[in-house]
Amino acid sequence: MSELPRSLTRLVREFRRFPGIGPRTAQRLAFHVVTRPRSQSEGLAAALTDALATLTVCSTCFCVSQGDLCPVCSDPDRDASTLCVVEEAQEVFLLEKAGVFNGRYHVLGGAISPLEGIGPDDLNVRQLVSRVEGRSAAEVILAMDPDPEGETTATYLADLLRPHRVKLCRIALGLPSGSRLQYSDPATLVAAFAGRREM
Amino acid sequence: MSELPRSLTRLVREFRRFPGIGPRTAQRLAFHVVTRPRSQSEGLAAALTDALATLTVCSTCFCVSQGDLCPVCSDPDRDASTLCVVEEAQEVFLLEKAGVFNGRYHVLGGAISPLEGIGPDDLNVRQLVSRVEGRSAAEVILAMDPDPEGETTATYLADLLRPHRVKLCRIALGLPSGSRLQYSDPATLVAAFAGRREM
Repeated sequence: MSELPRSLTRLVREFRRFPGIGPRTAQRLAFHVVTRPRSQSEGLAAALTDALATLTVCSTCFCVSQGDLCPVCSDPDRDASTLCVVEEAQEVFLLEKAGVFNGRYHVLGGAISPLEGIGPDDLNVRQLVSRVEGRSAAEVILAMDPDPEGETTATYLADLLRPHRVKLCRIALGLPSGSRLQYSDPATLVAAFAGRREM
Repeated sequence: MSELPRSLTRLVREFRRFPGIGPRTAQRLAFHVVTRPRSQSEGLAAALTDALATLTVCSTCFCVSQGDLCPVCSDPDRDASTLCVVEEAQEVFLLEKAGVFNGRYHVLGGAISPLEGIGPDDLNVRQLVSRVEGRSAAEVILAMDPDPEGETTATYLADLLRPHRVKLCRIALGLPSGSRLQYSDPATLVAAFAGRREM
Protein backbone atom coordinates (compact mmCIF):
# COMPACT_ATOMS: atom_id res chain seq x y z
CA MET A 1 0.00 0.00 0.00
CA SER A 2 2.96 2.32 -0.57
CA GLU A 3 1.19 4.08 -3.47
CA LEU A 4 -1.34 6.77 -2.64
CA PRO A 5 -4.84 6.15 -4.03
CA ARG A 6 -5.13 7.69 -7.53
CA SER A 7 -7.68 10.35 -6.55
CA LEU A 8 -5.49 11.43 -3.62
CA THR A 9 -2.46 11.80 -5.90
CA ARG A 10 -4.59 13.94 -8.21
CA LEU A 11 -5.66 16.16 -5.32
CA VAL A 12 -2.04 16.55 -4.17
CA ARG A 13 -1.11 17.60 -7.72
CA GLU A 14 -3.86 20.25 -7.76
CA PHE A 15 -2.77 21.72 -4.42
CA ARG A 16 0.81 21.83 -5.70
CA ARG A 17 -0.27 24.34 -8.37
CA PHE A 18 -0.74 27.03 -5.71
CA PRO A 19 2.15 29.46 -5.29
CA GLY A 20 4.09 28.81 -2.10
CA ILE A 21 2.65 25.29 -1.63
CA GLY A 22 5.44 22.70 -1.76
CA PRO A 23 5.06 18.91 -2.09
CA ARG A 24 4.83 18.30 1.66
CA THR A 25 2.20 20.94 2.32
CA ALA A 26 0.19 19.79 -0.71
CA GLN A 27 0.18 16.24 0.66
CA ARG A 28 -0.79 17.47 4.12
CA LEU A 29 -3.71 19.48 2.68
CA ALA A 30 -4.91 16.57 0.53
CA PHE A 31 -4.81 14.12 3.45
CA HIS A 32 -6.63 16.64 5.59
CA VAL A 33 -9.37 16.94 2.96
CA VAL A 34 -10.06 13.20 3.02
CA THR A 35 -9.58 12.47 6.74
CA ARG A 36 -11.41 15.37 8.43
CA PRO A 37 -15.20 15.34 8.86
CA ARG A 38 -16.76 15.02 5.42
CA SER A 39 -19.05 18.04 5.84
CA GLN A 40 -16.01 20.34 6.04
CA SER A 41 -14.51 19.09 2.79
CA GLU A 42 -17.90 19.24 1.10
CA GLY A 43 -18.05 22.87 2.25
CA LEU A 44 -14.75 23.57 0.47
CA ALA A 45 -15.94 21.83 -2.70
CA ALA A 46 -19.17 23.84 -2.67
CA ALA A 47 -17.34 27.12 -1.98
CA LEU A 48 -14.98 26.47 -4.89
CA THR A 49 -17.82 25.71 -7.29
CA ASP A 50 -19.71 28.78 -6.07
CA ALA A 51 -16.69 31.08 -6.47
CA LEU A 52 -15.97 29.78 -9.97
CA ALA A 53 -19.63 30.22 -10.94
CA THR A 54 -20.11 33.74 -9.58
CA LEU A 55 -16.72 35.41 -9.91
CA THR A 56 -14.85 36.54 -12.97
CA VAL A 57 -12.20 39.12 -13.80
CA CYS A 58 -13.13 42.73 -14.64
CA SER A 59 -12.68 43.23 -18.38
CA THR A 60 -11.12 46.67 -17.83
CA CYS A 61 -8.92 46.53 -14.71
CA PHE A 62 -8.55 42.72 -14.30
CA CYS A 63 -9.56 42.78 -10.64
CA VAL A 64 -11.80 40.01 -9.30
CA SER A 65 -15.38 40.96 -10.10
CA GLN A 66 -18.92 39.63 -9.88
CA GLY A 67 -19.76 41.00 -13.34
CA ASP A 68 -18.07 42.13 -16.53
CA LEU A 69 -17.09 45.43 -14.87
CA CYS A 70 -16.00 45.67 -11.22
CA PRO A 71 -17.69 48.20 -8.88
CA VAL A 72 -14.75 50.63 -9.21
CA CYS A 73 -14.69 50.59 -13.02
CA SER A 74 -18.47 51.00 -13.23
CA ASP A 75 -18.62 53.84 -10.67
CA PRO A 76 -18.89 57.19 -12.52
CA ASP A 77 -17.75 59.04 -9.38
CA ARG A 78 -14.29 57.50 -9.49
CA ASP A 79 -11.61 59.67 -11.05
CA ALA A 80 -10.89 58.03 -14.41
CA SER A 81 -7.88 60.26 -15.05
CA THR A 82 -5.80 58.61 -12.30
CA LEU A 83 -4.76 54.98 -12.70
CA CYS A 84 -3.14 52.95 -9.90
CA VAL A 85 -1.22 49.92 -11.18
CA VAL A 86 -0.87 46.98 -8.76
CA GLU A 87 0.55 43.47 -9.07
CA GLU A 88 -2.35 41.46 -7.65
CA ALA A 89 -6.14 41.78 -7.32
CA GLN A 90 -5.84 41.33 -3.56
CA GLU A 91 -4.08 44.66 -3.33
CA VAL A 92 -7.07 46.50 -4.81
CA PHE A 93 -9.21 45.39 -1.86
CA LEU A 94 -6.45 46.36 0.56
CA LEU A 95 -6.16 49.87 -0.91
CA GLU A 96 -9.95 50.24 -1.02
CA LYS A 97 -10.13 49.28 2.64
CA ALA A 98 -7.44 51.85 3.50
CA GLY A 99 -9.43 54.42 1.48
CA VAL A 100 -6.27 56.05 0.14
CA PHE A 101 -7.25 56.40 -3.51
CA ASN A 102 -10.24 57.62 -5.51
CA GLY A 103 -9.08 56.79 -9.05
CA ARG A 104 -9.23 53.51 -10.96
CA TYR A 105 -7.00 50.44 -10.83
CA HIS A 106 -5.11 48.21 -13.20
CA VAL A 107 -4.12 44.73 -12.02
CA LEU A 108 -1.02 43.37 -13.77
CA GLY A 109 -1.43 39.82 -12.52
CA GLY A 110 2.12 39.63 -11.18
CA ALA A 111 5.50 41.27 -11.68
CA ILE A 112 8.27 40.85 -14.23
CA SER A 113 10.61 38.12 -12.99
CA PRO A 114 13.26 36.73 -15.38
CA LEU A 115 14.14 34.10 -12.76
CA GLU A 116 10.59 32.73 -12.81
CA GLY A 117 10.28 33.23 -16.56
CA ILE A 118 7.61 35.95 -16.23
CA GLY A 119 7.93 38.67 -18.85
CA PRO A 120 5.70 41.65 -19.81
CA ASP A 121 3.69 39.46 -22.20
CA ASP A 122 2.59 37.29 -19.29
CA LEU A 123 1.08 40.30 -17.52
CA ASN A 124 -1.74 42.73 -18.38
CA VAL A 125 0.78 45.26 -19.74
CA ARG A 126 -0.58 45.65 -23.29
CA GLN A 127 -4.02 46.39 -21.85
CA LEU A 128 -2.52 49.03 -19.55
CA VAL A 129 -0.91 50.80 -22.52
CA SER A 130 -4.26 50.75 -24.36
CA ARG A 131 -6.01 52.31 -21.38
CA VAL A 132 -3.40 55.04 -21.07
CA GLU A 133 -3.49 55.76 -24.82
CA GLY A 134 -7.25 55.60 -25.17
CA ARG A 135 -8.46 57.64 -22.27
CA SER A 136 -5.56 60.02 -21.84
CA ALA A 137 -5.13 59.28 -18.12
CA ALA A 138 -3.43 62.25 -16.47
CA GLU A 139 -1.53 60.28 -13.87
CA VAL A 140 -0.37 56.68 -13.44
CA ILE A 141 0.66 55.60 -9.96
CA LEU A 142 2.98 52.58 -10.02
CA ALA A 143 2.17 50.70 -6.81
CA MET A 144 4.24 47.55 -7.33
CA ASP A 145 5.97 45.97 -4.33
CA PRO A 146 9.28 47.52 -3.23
CA ASP A 147 11.23 44.34 -4.05
CA PRO A 148 13.50 43.56 -7.04
CA GLU A 149 10.64 42.23 -9.22
CA GLY A 150 8.38 45.17 -8.33
CA GLU A 151 11.11 47.74 -8.99
CA THR A 152 11.99 46.11 -12.32
CA THR A 153 8.33 46.17 -13.33
CA ALA A 154 7.92 49.82 -12.28
CA THR A 155 11.00 50.86 -14.27
CA TYR A 156 9.83 48.88 -17.29
CA LEU A 157 6.33 50.41 -17.20
CA ALA A 158 7.68 53.95 -16.67
CA ASP A 159 9.87 53.58 -19.79
CA LEU A 160 6.94 52.17 -21.74
CA LEU A 161 4.43 54.83 -20.72
CA ARG A 162 6.69 57.91 -20.81
CA PRO A 163 6.04 58.64 -24.53
CA HIS A 164 2.32 58.93 -23.71
CA ARG A 165 2.85 62.21 -21.84
CA VAL A 166 1.32 60.99 -18.63
CA LYS A 167 2.48 61.93 -15.10
CA LEU A 168 4.22 58.81 -13.75
CA CYS A 169 4.53 58.30 -10.00
CA ARG A 170 5.95 55.56 -7.80
CA ILE A 171 4.49 55.11 -4.29
CA ALA A 172 6.83 56.39 -1.59
CA LEU A 173 9.39 54.05 -0.06
CA GLY A 174 10.52 54.77 3.50
CA LEU A 175 10.07 53.76 7.12
CA PRO A 176 6.69 52.14 7.76
CA SER A 177 4.41 53.96 10.18
CA GLY A 178 4.98 52.88 13.78
CA SER A 179 8.40 51.34 13.07
CA ARG A 180 11.75 52.10 14.75
CA LEU A 181 14.76 53.59 13.02
CA GLN A 182 17.08 51.20 14.88
CA TYR A 183 15.32 48.11 13.57
CA SER A 184 15.14 49.24 9.94
CA ASP A 185 17.13 47.50 7.23
CA PRO A 186 19.75 49.40 5.19
CA ALA A 187 17.72 49.44 1.94
CA THR A 188 14.75 51.04 3.74
CA LEU A 189 17.02 53.62 5.39
CA VAL A 190 18.57 54.49 2.02
CA ALA A 191 15.06 54.95 0.55
CA ALA A 192 13.93 57.01 3.55
CA PHE A 193 16.89 59.41 3.24
CA ALA A 194 16.74 59.62 -0.54
CA GLY A 195 13.01 60.43 -0.33
CA ARG A 196 13.31 63.02 2.49
CA ARG A 197 10.91 65.96 2.30
CA GLU A 198 11.44 69.52 3.45
CA MET A 199 9.30 70.45 6.46
CA MET B 1 -15.33 48.01 -3.03
CA SER B 2 -13.50 47.38 0.23
CA GLU B 3 -15.60 44.26 0.95
CA LEU B 4 -14.59 41.02 -0.75
CA PRO B 5 -17.33 39.42 -2.88
CA ARG B 6 -19.41 37.04 -0.76
CA SER B 7 -18.32 33.89 -2.57
CA LEU B 8 -14.67 34.87 -2.17
CA THR B 9 -15.12 35.39 1.58
CA ARG B 10 -16.69 31.95 1.78
CA LEU B 11 -13.75 30.39 -0.03
CA VAL B 12 -11.27 32.16 2.29
CA ARG B 13 -13.18 30.76 5.28
CA GLU B 14 -12.98 27.22 3.88
CA PHE B 15 -9.21 27.45 3.30
CA ARG B 16 -8.80 28.76 6.86
CA ARG B 17 -10.06 25.42 8.20
CA PHE B 18 -6.83 23.71 7.11
CA PRO B 19 -4.21 23.26 9.83
CA GLY B 20 -1.30 25.65 9.40
CA ILE B 21 -3.20 27.96 7.02
CA GLY B 22 -3.52 31.45 8.53
CA PRO B 23 -5.79 34.28 7.36
CA ARG B 24 -3.24 35.74 4.93
CA THR B 25 -2.42 32.44 3.25
CA ALA B 26 -6.12 31.57 3.04
CA GLN B 27 -6.81 34.87 1.27
CA ARG B 28 -3.87 34.35 -1.07
CA LEU B 29 -5.10 30.85 -1.99
CA ALA B 30 -8.67 32.07 -2.57
CA PHE B 31 -7.54 34.95 -4.80
CA HIS B 32 -5.32 32.58 -6.70
CA VAL B 33 -8.26 30.26 -7.32
CA VAL B 34 -10.31 33.02 -8.95
CA THR B 35 -7.57 34.90 -10.82
CA ARG B 36 -5.53 32.07 -12.38
CA PRO B 37 -6.63 30.37 -15.61
CA ARG B 38 -10.08 28.91 -15.02
CA SER B 39 -9.16 25.41 -16.20
CA GLN B 40 -6.70 25.06 -13.29
CA SER B 41 -9.30 25.91 -10.66
CA GLU B 42 -11.84 23.66 -12.32
CA GLY B 43 -9.22 20.92 -12.07
CA LEU B 44 -9.01 21.45 -8.30
CA ALA B 45 -12.81 21.43 -7.95
CA ALA B 46 -13.00 18.19 -9.95
CA ALA B 47 -10.16 16.58 -7.97
CA LEU B 48 -11.88 17.45 -4.69
CA THR B 49 -15.21 16.03 -5.82
CA ASP B 50 -13.46 12.90 -7.12
CA ALA B 51 -11.50 12.39 -3.88
CA LEU B 52 -14.63 12.81 -1.74
CA ALA B 53 -16.56 10.40 -3.96
CA THR B 54 -13.92 7.66 -4.11
CA LEU B 55 -12.10 7.83 -0.79
CA THR B 56 -13.22 6.97 2.68
CA VAL B 57 -11.61 5.91 5.94
CA CYS B 58 -10.86 2.25 6.68
CA SER B 59 -13.39 1.02 9.23
CA THR B 60 -10.69 -0.92 11.10
CA CYS B 61 -7.47 1.10 11.06
CA PHE B 62 -8.84 4.57 10.08
CA CYS B 63 -6.34 5.02 7.27
CA VAL B 64 -7.50 6.60 3.99
CA SER B 65 -9.05 3.85 1.89
CA GLN B 66 -10.88 3.29 -1.36
CA GLY B 67 -13.23 0.80 0.27
CA ASP B 68 -14.55 -0.19 3.69
CA LEU B 69 -11.26 -2.01 4.42
CA CYS B 70 -7.87 -0.67 3.32
CA PRO B 71 -5.43 -2.96 1.41
CA VAL B 72 -3.40 -3.64 4.58
CA CYS B 73 -6.40 -4.62 6.73
CA SER B 74 -7.81 -6.84 3.98
CA ASP B 75 -4.48 -8.57 3.24
CA PRO B 76 -4.43 -11.99 4.97
CA ASP B 77 -0.63 -12.12 4.66
CA ARG B 78 -0.11 -9.18 6.99
CA ASP B 79 0.73 -10.10 10.56
CA ALA B 80 -2.44 -9.32 12.54
CA SER B 81 -0.71 -9.89 15.87
CA THR B 82 1.45 -6.74 15.55
CA LEU B 83 -0.19 -3.33 15.57
CA CYS B 84 1.65 -0.10 14.71
CA VAL B 85 -0.10 3.00 16.09
CA VAL B 86 0.52 6.27 14.21
CA GLU B 87 -0.89 9.77 14.53
CA GLU B 88 -1.88 10.45 10.90
CA ALA B 89 -2.92 8.42 7.84
CA GLN B 90 -0.06 9.98 5.84
CA GLU B 91 2.43 8.12 8.04
CA VAL B 92 1.01 4.73 7.02
CA PHE B 93 1.96 5.42 3.39
CA LEU B 94 5.40 6.62 4.49
CA LEU B 95 6.04 3.44 6.51
CA GLU B 96 4.68 1.26 3.70
CA LYS B 97 7.04 2.96 1.25
CA ALA B 98 9.96 2.37 3.60
CA GLY B 99 8.85 -1.28 3.87
CA VAL B 100 9.81 -1.49 7.55
CA PHE B 101 6.74 -3.23 8.89
CA ASN B 102 4.61 -6.22 8.01
CA GLY B 103 1.88 -5.94 10.64
CA ARG B 104 -1.26 -3.82 10.68
CA TYR B 105 -1.79 -0.17 11.50
CA HIS B 106 -4.00 1.97 13.69
CA VAL B 107 -4.38 5.67 12.84
CA LEU B 108 -5.22 7.81 15.88
CA GLY B 109 -6.14 10.90 13.89
CA GLY B 110 -3.79 13.18 15.85
CA ALA B 111 -2.10 13.32 19.25
CA ILE B 112 -3.23 14.32 22.72
CA SER B 113 -2.69 18.06 23.10
CA PRO B 114 -4.21 19.83 26.12
CA LEU B 115 -3.09 23.17 24.60
CA GLU B 116 -5.18 22.58 21.50
CA GLY B 117 -7.99 20.98 23.48
CA ILE B 118 -7.45 17.52 21.96
CA GLY B 119 -8.07 14.68 24.42
CA PRO B 120 -8.22 10.88 24.02
CA ASP B 121 -11.94 11.07 23.17
CA ASP B 122 -11.12 13.14 20.07
CA LEU B 123 -8.86 10.37 18.77
CA ASN B 124 -9.45 6.74 17.69
CA VAL B 125 -8.32 5.49 21.13
CA ARG B 126 -11.44 3.56 22.14
CA GLN B 127 -11.27 1.68 18.83
CA LEU B 128 -7.60 0.81 19.47
CA VAL B 129 -8.46 -0.68 22.87
CA SER B 130 -11.23 -2.76 21.24
CA ARG B 131 -8.80 -4.07 18.64
CA VAL B 132 -6.23 -5.01 21.28
CA GLU B 133 -8.87 -6.67 23.50
CA GLY B 134 -10.67 -8.46 20.69
CA ARG B 135 -7.85 -9.98 18.69
CA SER B 136 -5.24 -10.47 21.37
CA ALA B 137 -2.55 -8.57 19.47
CA ALA B 138 0.83 -9.76 20.71
CA GLU B 139 2.67 -6.47 20.21
CA VAL B 140 1.71 -2.83 19.91
CA ILE B 141 4.34 -0.46 18.47
CA LEU B 142 3.71 3.14 19.48
CA ALA B 143 5.03 5.20 16.54
CA MET B 144 3.88 8.66 17.60
CA ASP B 145 6.15 11.64 16.83
CA PRO B 146 9.04 12.25 19.26
CA ASP B 147 7.59 15.62 20.35
CA PRO B 148 5.74 16.55 23.59
CA GLU B 149 2.28 15.67 22.17
CA GLY B 150 3.53 12.38 20.74
CA GLU B 151 5.31 11.39 23.95
CA THR B 152 2.24 12.26 26.04
CA THR B 153 0.08 10.16 23.74
CA ALA B 154 2.51 7.23 23.84
CA THR B 155 2.62 7.31 27.67
CA TYR B 156 -1.18 7.54 27.87
CA LEU B 157 -1.69 4.61 25.49
CA ALA B 158 0.96 2.51 27.24
CA ASP B 159 -0.83 3.00 30.59
CA LEU B 160 -4.17 2.22 28.96
CA LEU B 161 -3.05 -0.94 27.17
CA ARG B 162 -0.76 -2.40 29.86
CA PRO B 163 -3.60 -4.33 31.62
CA HIS B 164 -4.24 -6.17 28.34
CA ARG B 165 -0.98 -8.12 28.64
CA VAL B 166 0.36 -7.01 25.31
CA LYS B 167 4.02 -6.26 24.50
CA LEU B 168 4.26 -2.44 24.27
CA CYS B 169 7.08 -0.84 22.28
CA ARG B 170 8.03 2.70 21.42
CA ILE B 171 10.01 3.30 18.20
CA ALA B 172 13.67 4.10 18.89
CA LEU B 173 14.74 7.70 19.40
CA GLY B 174 18.32 8.60 18.50
CA LEU B 175 20.52 10.13 15.86
CA PRO B 176 18.94 10.05 12.39
CA SER B 177 20.83 8.07 9.77
CA GLY B 178 23.41 10.19 7.94
CA SER B 179 23.44 12.93 10.59
CA ARG B 180 26.44 14.34 12.49
CA LEU B 181 26.97 14.08 16.21
CA GLN B 182 28.20 17.67 16.36
CA TYR B 183 25.00 19.07 14.85
CA SER B 184 22.60 17.07 17.03
CA ASP B 185 20.37 18.77 19.59
CA PRO B 186 20.71 17.90 23.30
CA ALA B 187 17.36 16.04 23.52
CA THR B 188 18.38 13.77 20.63
CA LEU B 189 21.79 13.13 22.22
CA VAL B 190 20.16 12.26 25.56
CA ALA B 191 17.85 9.80 23.74
CA ALA B 192 20.75 8.32 21.75
CA PHE B 193 22.81 7.66 24.91
CA ALA B 194 19.87 6.40 26.96
CA GLY B 195 18.96 3.98 24.15
CA ARG B 196 22.52 2.72 23.52
CA ARG B 197 22.88 -0.95 22.56
CA GLU B 198 25.68 -3.36 23.32
CA MET B 199 27.69 -4.36 20.25
